[in-house]
Amino acid sequence: MRILGIDPGSTVTGYGVLEQARGGVAHVAHGTLRAPRGTGVGPRLAAIQHALVEVIELHRPDVAVVEQIFVAASPKAALVLGQARGVALAAVASAGVPLVEYGAKQIKQAATGSGAAAKKDVQTMVRRLLALERRPAADAADALAAALCHANAGPLGAAAASARRSRAPRSRASRFVLRRAP
Amino acid sequence: MRILGIDPGSTVTGYGVLEQARGGVAHVAHGTLRAPRGTGVGPRLAAIQHALVEVIELHRPDVAVVEQIFVAASPKAALVLGQARGVALAAVASAGVPLVEYGAKQIKQAATGSGAAAKKDVQTMVRRLLALERRPAADAADALAAALCHANAGPLGAAAASARRSRAPRSRASRFVLRRAP
Repeated sequence: MRILGIDPGSTVTGYGVLEQARGGVAHVAHGTLRAPRGTGVGPRLAAIQHALVEVIELHRPDVAVVEQIFVAASPKAALVLGQARGVALAAVASAGVPLVEYGAKQIKQAATGSGAAAKKDVQTMVRRLLALERRPAADAADALAAALCHANAGPLGAAAASARRSRAPRSRASRFVLRRAP
Repeated sequence: MRILGIDPGSTVTGYGVLEQARGGVAHVAHGTLRAPRGTGVGPRLAAIQHALVEVIELHRPDVAVVEQIFVAASPKAALVLGQARGVALAAVASAGVPLVEYGAKQIKQAATGSGAAAKKDVQTMVRRLLALERRPAADAADALAAALCHANAGPLGAAAASARRSRAPRSRASRFVLRRAP
């Protein structure tokens, strides 16, 4: 089972891909998708969405994982985050990939053992758990942590995932240059 | 000049298309895009986005207009609205169509003469101004009012529009059945 974790953001969207087998979990790829600067919000959202479509086409995940959002600092922040989240969820659904959501605490817990861990701790622990050469960027680490959370969720998590499965028509990917993690 | 007004929403997204010539403004089309029920948020967003891409391919607007969002009832409402708004803005940008935003008051003013008009008044006045046989649905009326606002904005509005112009690569449209207004 191939798991794609996504951490949507309006300027940087992190992603992480894990392969889960009987023996455990292996790191496949991770990186950050950055929207081009100096353009309007629409072109930035389109660029992030096209880049994510490219990631999905490349890695063909069986399931995608995002963090559930319950609170945001302000309506303004929620709107901006919502816009980025919307294009990510649409990209996943357009590719026919089922989506699972976990709470922020659950995701941090899966990566660090603590639901209140700091961003830096998530980066450090994700690096250690997946034996990465370098510490991943914060957004990529959060995406890998989300994927790890699903890998650890076991049969109950898988049942929740399949309950949410719903497929939309597969769309054609647009070309977009990605900035991948080293 | 062909103007596409969009009123993004998580369950219903309204659209309206106007043609502006020297003599005035003519109605071209309007309608509401409804996401299929009983699916997850991702497939719903993808369906709305694909439907909007279809509208853009069909009507080939020179400019798209959306309402600026400053306030929302709550962070939760803002997130949900943001998700719908994000896929709409990305669809517009992917088609290479420049985007203009106007405040809610400006849009109501353009349609009704009052920045504090009720939804029903917008529907009634949009119908009268565009000589429509029937009153358009609320979301379609709001979209037509946004397009009217840009048509009325004159040279200053056009300058603002061109200042925001930024084009992203044109993407291929996905097929989606639209529910059009009668």
